[in-house]
Amino acid sequence: MVFPNEPLIRVRGPIIKCQLLETALLNILNFESLIATKAARVCLAAENDPVIEFGLRRAQGVDGGLTAARAACVGGCAGTSNLQAGQRFGIPVSGTQAHSWIMFFEREKEAFEAYARAMPNNCVFLVDTYNSLEGVRHAIDVASQLRKDGYEMIGVRLDSGDRVTLSIEARRMLDRAGFTNAKIVCSGDLDEYAIADMKRHGAKIDMWGVGTKLTTGQPDAALGGIYKLGAVRRPGGQWQYRIKLSDEPAKTSCPGRLQVRRFYQPDGRFVADAIYEIDHAPSERCVIVDLETEKKTEIPAKTDYSDLLVPIFRKGGLVYQAPELEASREHSRTQLSCAPPEILRLSDPAPYPVGLEKSLHKLRSGLIAQAKEL
Amino acid sequence: MVFPNEPLIRVRGPIIKCQLLETALLNILNFESLIATKAARVCLAAENDPVIEFGLRRAQGVDGGLTAARAACVGGCAGTSNLQAGQRFGIPVSGTQAHSWIMFFEREKEAFEAYARAMPNNCVFLVDTYNSLEGVRHAIDVASQLRKDGYEMIGVRLDSGDRVTLSIEARRMLDRAGFTNAKIVCSGDLDEYAIADMKRHGAKIDMWGVGTKLTTGQPDAALGGIYKLGAVRRPGGQWQYRIKLSDEPAKTSCPGRLQVRRFYQPDGRFVADAIYEIDHAPSERCVIVDLETEKKTEIPAKTDYSDLLVPIFRKGGLVYQAPELEASREHSRTQLSCAPPEILRLSDPAPYPVGLEKSLHKLRSGLIAQAKEL
Repeated sequence: MVFPNEPLIRVRGPIIKCQLLETALLNILNFESLIATKAARVCLAAENDPVIEFGLRRAQGVDGGLTAARAACVGGCAGTSNLQAGQRFGIPVSGTQAHSWIMFFEREKEAFEAYARAMPNNCVFLVDTYNSLEGVRHAIDVASQLRKDGYEMIGVRLDSGDRVTLSIEARRMLDRAGFTNAKIVCSGDLDEYAIADMKRHGAKIDMWGVGTKLTTGQPDAALGGIYKLGAVRRPGGQWQYRIKLSDEPAKTSCPGRLQVRRFYQPDGRFVADAIYEIDHAPSERCVIVDLETEKKTEIPAKTDYSDLLVPIFRKGGLVYQAPELEASREHSRTQLSCAPPEILRLSDPAPYPVGLEKSLHKLRSGLIAQAKEL
Repeated sequence: MVFPNEPLIRVRGPIIKCQLLETALLNILNFESLIATKAARVCLAAENDPVIEFGLRRAQGVDGGLTAARAACVGGCAGTSNLQAGQRFGIPVSGTQAHSWIMFFEREKEAFEAYARAMPNNCVFLVDTYNSLEGVRHAIDVASQLRKDGYEMIGVRLDSGDRVTLSIEARRMLDRAGFTNAKIVCSGDLDEYAIADMKRHGAKIDMWGVGTKLTTGQPDAALGGIYKLGAVRRPGGQWQYRIKLSDEPAKTSCPGRLQVRRFYQPDGRFVADAIYEIDHAPSERCVIVDLETEKKTEIPAKTDYSDLLVPIFRKGGLVYQAPELEASREHSRTQLSCAPPEILRLSDPAPYPVGLEKSLHKLRSGLIAQAKEL
């Protein structure tokens, strides 16, 4: 879990090589962080229901869709409809029927019957082609026949209309017909806000298929991560700190070779993050200065902490063992469970305390004053 | 130039093959149309100034960036900072300096001098690292020396701050110093609205570098194109029309095998578009019915027209010669120049008259009534 202004990565090396990395690193980190974050928000809104990524047809390029499917899984999604992502990354693949399957047959029920014959173990009937509740009735008819043949339908999918009312009524119909285990899948123009709203209004939905807005990160579409020069090593070996000014104070860059120290409560909850220059490690009582307000927060001595940036390459060699996708997903789940709940609210979230350790803040202020004279 | 609800493509073939194409076609057409449209809007706002696509670091995947660079060029951009797009598609590549170049040196002027020594023919000085107008002064100093050596600077780039005021002052400084041909390039968080606004306030800018919001199509990030089954050929050979209903009338699909007829004024200006079923070509006096309002528009007899969908594959073989990128760009420029100006307004644009030819409208209404009984 990373916060605004917090370094995600630190690169040290010959200037030309470091410069060549800029666009590639920004492209990867900005996009994947955006989608993993969006997925985490959608999954939080869905509470414990599984969320499936459904967005390839609207993704920004084939590779945009593939990368988004993987990042969505890191952020908490349980599966994807993107078969290549399943094959390449081992993400569980999931999907139901297309409207064209239903429309190919003269009657909806015939389409369900043909599907049940072809895939008796994998029936999620898409019910909204003509009339959603009529579709549920047809699904129940076909599932009753299927049951006589020894198979159970998985459920039905609602893809349009007032899915709060439709799902409540569909649940009642399915239960009354003896299909209490049948799932109701919801899709169609969803995001974290739509899901939270449907849940608040009592929708009876078991699983969510989220496409366009997840896979393209709407409404943001891009995370504004930047790559800035923080220090230059002079021929004598000493480091010189560098800064870029901006009319907006928070956009002025941060000098130095940076690390992030995260402090924890005894139960693992996050307390605050301090960005510091590695030559000026925080003292026993770390003081964090907010970049916008200059408000100071003192962290009590002996508070638990960990430093978040870890070595990935050293002297050109990979020294990091990348976790399996499932482990990344679990890691992000754990991180979210340790975040203060008030920062995870969909509307009006509290800010998380993240700022500059006081000696870095002083260094930055001095460089700002100095740069204004250049 | 395509309008909402208008078919972009028609696919005919065995159902399974047609179904396999759905996601790929939607992925390509939705994303590339989105970016080409966004680029066209940005270029219209920039009037005749060149616009360069600058967004790879924020693109949705590497391939998202590459595809966007090409689509932006189709939409009117004059170049890209994406070198791979230059190599692959022959798009002119363009760029200036990075902030890290400036920050690597102890003083801005040293950075400009070093750049001028390395690339005397390609100097666009990035002036906003510390103070934009001070930067312009340094650029003028270095360019004066450069001129003595027989080279002319191309210009300066303003990347942040109040670029209306800064550009007016920079223009005055450059002119006064004898650099009347030096260009002022503007970048940083631009889109069509920002550009139009700066122009309205008298900004003196010659060229625009537009990144994130162009390359990711913000604020939309995805075009909502769909792929629907319109007709099924029965074993006897006759076509049966199909429809998908929706609670929102405009989202109910359109049955049939569709074509689009565009009508023109004698000077080539677009009049209206009629979507029709190929077995029911418009009569001498075509009547177009608006999908939302049901308003009818009659096209006078003998109005010029062309049918927009052309064969690309026939019986599995390519029968279409794809135009060169430059020809596509020229085509889109011509199309835009033939569109009624009121539909191109950035705010509150007039709708373009596009609707169903009356016999298709009747066919669709009949199928809607019939499907509601299924």
